[in-house]
Amino acid sequence: MKIYKAHILFTKEKDHFEVIENGYIGVDDGHVVGVATDDSVFQCPEAEVIDLGDRLLIPAMNDIHVHAPQYRNLGLAMDLELLDWLDNYTFPEESRFADIHYAERMYRRFVHDLWRHGTMRTVCFATTHLPATRLLMHLFREAGMSAFVGKVNMNRNCPEALCETLEAAEQACETMVREFGDADSLVRPIITPRFIPSCTPEMLQLCGKLAQQYQLPVQSHLSENTSEIELVRTLEPESSSYGDAYNRYGLFGQTPTIMAHCVWTEGKELELIRKNDVIVAHCPTSNFNIASGMAPIRTFLDSGISVGLGSDISGGHDLSIFRMMVYAIQVSKMHYQRDKSKHFLTLSEAFWLATKSAGRFFGHVGSFEPGYDFDALVIDDSDLNHDHYSLLHRLERFIYVGDDRNIVHRFCRGREITEPAVIA
Amino acid sequence: MKIYKAHILFTKEKDHFEVIENGYIGVDDGHVVGVATDDSVFQCPEAEVIDLGDRLLIPAMNDIHVHAPQYRNLGLAMDLELLDWLDNYTFPEESRFADIHYAERMYRRFVHDLWRHGTMRTVCFATTHLPATRLLMHLFREAGMSAFVGKVNMNRNCPEALCETLEAAEQACETMVREFGDADSLVRPIITPRFIPSCTPEMLQLCGKLAQQYQLPVQSHLSENTSEIELVRTLEPESSSYGDAYNRYGLFGQTPTIMAHCVWTEGKELELIRKNDVIVAHCPTSNFNIASGMAPIRTFLDSGISVGLGSDISGGHDLSIFRMMVYAIQVSKMHYQRDKSKHFLTLSEAFWLATKSAGRFFGHVGSFEPGYDFDALVIDDSDLNHDHYSLLHRLERFIYVGDDRNIVHRFCRGREITEPAVIA
Repeated sequence: MKIYKAHILFTKEKDHFEVIENGYIGVDDGHVVGVATDDSVFQCPEAEVIDLGDRLLIPAMNDIHVHAPQYRNLGLAMDLELLDWLDNYTFPEESRFADIHYAERMYRRFVHDLWRHGTMRTVCFATTHLPATRLLMHLFREAGMSAFVGKVNMNRNCPEALCETLEAAEQACETMVREFGDADSLVRPIITPRFIPSCTPEMLQLCGKLAQQYQLPVQSHLSENTSEIELVRTLEPESSSYGDAYNRYGLFGQTPTIMAHCVWTEGKELELIRKNDVIVAHCPTSNFNIASGMAPIRTFLDSGISVGLGSDISGGHDLSIFRMMVYAIQVSKMHYQRDKSKHFLTLSEAFWLATKSAGRFFGHVGSFEPGYDFDALVIDDSDLNHDHYSLLHRLERFIYVGDDRNIVHRFCRGREITEPAVIA
Repeated sequence: MKIYKAHILFTKEKDHFEVIENGYIGVDDGHVVGVATDDSVFQCPEAEVIDLGDRLLIPAMNDIHVHAPQYRNLGLAMDLELLDWLDNYTFPEESRFADIHYAERMYRRFVHDLWRHGTMRTVCFATTHLPATRLLMHLFREAGMSAFVGKVNMNRNCPEALCETLEAAEQACETMVREFGDADSLVRPIITPRFIPSCTPEMLQLCGKLAQQYQLPVQSHLSENTSEIELVRTLEPESSSYGDAYNRYGLFGQTPTIMAHCVWTEGKELELIRKNDVIVAHCPTSNFNIASGMAPIRTFLDSGISVGLGSDISGGHDLSIFRMMVYAIQVSKMHYQRDKSKHFLTLSEAFWLATKSAGRFFGHVGSFEPGYDFDALVIDDSDLNHDHYSLLHRLERFIYVGDDRNIVHRFCRGREITEPAVIA
């Protein structure tokens, strides 16, 4: 057992922070034994005690929606409308991942920068290319970080270079399962139909079948913008909603499922999400940048729907999940401004979304309760702390004002994660 | 004359960037002589040529609405509603500026961090305290940075410690004019009634009189939230709008005037702003954080109204005007999402707001046209530039993804500004 001493903050419940000043956290075999104000409770006098001084110890970040191959496009071409942006930036960039050397250069940078921003767990889209996707999974494994990585499935409304056959899709899935199928592994595959407009009914059917057969989780996009919803209505006229279309193919909670955006989700679709325990990936910067609208997160929480945060690179422009907390609060404040019955998200709620709520997708992740994986960040906020603040105010200031410079240690399942290598 | 060589980008017009790859800019006596692709056009062979290499040279940032004494509260207590936040955080903090030693510690940090983020020109609120306000002006002067600093006027609806008499207000103004009245100085006073709810009619009258008498500019807050507007309607029943109330006191464009927020400005108030050439300080993070609503900047621009950007610390949580550009674009995208006739702000428009449009308040500032003050930043984006991008894309990525680490030189009126001292 190792025991870390620091100011410990986390959210067991969404409504408030647990704050243990000069607290101790016992960690054994990668998991949290407990948190205490006195290390003697661990009854382990031989345990190494690591004193982190006047620093904050918090759960690490989870990013549950991000496009790894779009990392080069981060912060680029934000003046374009969605379709021009896809055709001129997104698809051409994704096509380049047929080149494994290019993929390695970009994916190493991506994994490095997730590390830099304290994101230890990621649910990401790769491309349709199997070799590059396997490489990304190996890079996460090499770094010691956790990820669900989706080899993207698509076979319509996309450039030929990114179109795949049903056979290739099935074989690729089998390869991924063979190589990364261990349920206890930190890096695992996830079934990833891009979204309904880019998959034929046959492809969607195959995706549902593979998810069932290998008991794999699922991720996709849902109800991001109004014209997309209109298009899906035409493509799947028998479905009662966009979400119901996924549901009919076994891609909506039959296995653990994340749906990104849900900006315009309401009524029957909202009810289906709740019933099927689908997790919503809220991507607030992307909501703004792509002019989609603002997802109604308070409504989702009030309905008992699970929500996590996603950076959605490169629709989003910031890889930091701390920035996503700020943006999620801001989006909710715009809803509140118009309807005072929808109270805005508090800091503890936003923190909980990014940690314990999102972490559920990975198992016992995102909290410091006994049995949880010890995924943690050590925050040195001395450069922000130029006057006396409470511990909660220090955390709030780090979230609003700090950045990656303040993150001085990172842990994933108990192991300290050092800086991953990049290719210059 | 000095000649700087770098990749030069600026916005002469709002609709596009001037981009000069490996360009030259001639600077004489603090002012831009011209920009060229060849240094021989300056016909000054003895001029020192400073080669800045593969870096971007852009105009420095202008922040036209920020509360200097609220800097300690940056990123704090964002869960509170406006009134609780004012009573428990803002007013108590401002009261501490009666202590000149406290003021020096905080104001040095504030000036330092403006420098850090590349803001060379600031229009700021101080407090009602004359000694602390004079100190702040001396600190700007010592740093070589430019500012309009407002000793705040208020005498109602505020804690006693921040309440002042008319006599004190008048004397303080006279002192400031005596000390900082030189129209060519980089640091100048500005008449600053906090807002109508915190000033009696007599105080507003005095402010208008002083502005007229000493030909001083004016700044205040306008139409930030709906209950504030309702309150002003009660306090000033004879005025046709909140803006008209300022106008009746000679505080609305009779001398150059900045009004912060204008979230709910429309109709007659909008028309009066246009007619009187009042400049709007758009503070997008503050619009979100305080749940005020989203200012209709496209409407203002379409109406020919001048707009600049403000960080509005600590309603805003970020001192970086580059971040304000991103947020301003995002606010405009939410208007666009609801009304496609209001096209969102482009990057060049946001950049122009922060540079040439805001810079007009200071004279010829914010562009690299001949005769403009040479206010500039040198951007080293090599850490962002891990693949080949165009110069415009490099600038866009710096704005969206970069931060103060990328700013390697700062100039204000021709002089390189080195790091201002802080008190530990």
